[in-house]
Amino acid sequence: MQAADASLDLVYAALADSTRRTIVSMLAHGDATVGTIAARFPMSLNGVSKHLKVLERAGVLERTIEGREHRLRLAPGRLDDAARWLDHYRRFWESRLDALEGLLVQQHGPQTATRPTTRRTARKRR
Amino acid sequence: MQAADASLDLVYAALADSTRRTIVSMLAHGDATVGTIAARFPMSLNGVSKHLKVLERAGVLERTIEGREHRLRLAPGRLDDAARWLDHYRRFWESRLDALEGLLVQQHGPQTATRPTTRRTARKRR
Repeated sequence: MQAADASLDLVYAALADSTRRTIVSMLAHGDATVGTIAARFPMSLNGVSKHLKVLERAGVLERTIEGREHRLRLAPGRLDDAARWLDHYRRFWESRLDALEGLLVQQHGPQTATRPTTRRTARKRR
Repeated sequence: MQAADASLDLVYAALADSTRRTIVSMLAHGDATVGTIAARFPMSLNGVSKHLKVLERAGVLERTIEGREHRLRLAPGRLDDAARWLDHYRRFWESRLDALEGLLVQQHGPQTATRPTTRRTARKRR
């Protein structure tokens, strides 16, 4: 297995948990301490620490230790790799979604084919 | 945990394996039989079947059984959800990547800050 493959394995595995995705979303809004992150979840500090380590090993976050304070911030590179992998195949499934939408419209009329706004927006932007 | 969270867990976990990502890339280019997919990998049919089941449970592929032939095709909805989740946070890490690039240029000159072409392209498209 190539290094890039192993790295994507770790990033997607890190994202395959809703607690870890919430941590990513918190850090996307700004750096935070371990204490701030831990306070957000109804679980032990030890439990949160394990999730943080999974994200750290995947290269999704970076930890800086200043005295007794552990500061965390999002490390963008690996998340970007994961997003680009999906982007590469997106054009294939978007053409399939368009075909399904076309079929729905043909069978039931245009009001049946409403897709989520975020996706429409994402497509318009490109 | 909400249904959308559980669904994202399964999709990202399904993508956290290079064999399964290769299967996704094969199906992105067109529908295929289980036999065609299995022939691509140096592992038992049983091994490949397990990977296919993980992708199927995650809603990433659909299987149609016609007589003895199992046809597989990419199901676009869940992959789209996974890509959109990443898109939502992308603007945060892209601003960080821009800051890092700015810092590199400041310290070592413009030739040091070359980013992968695919990322540049992906950004231009939006």
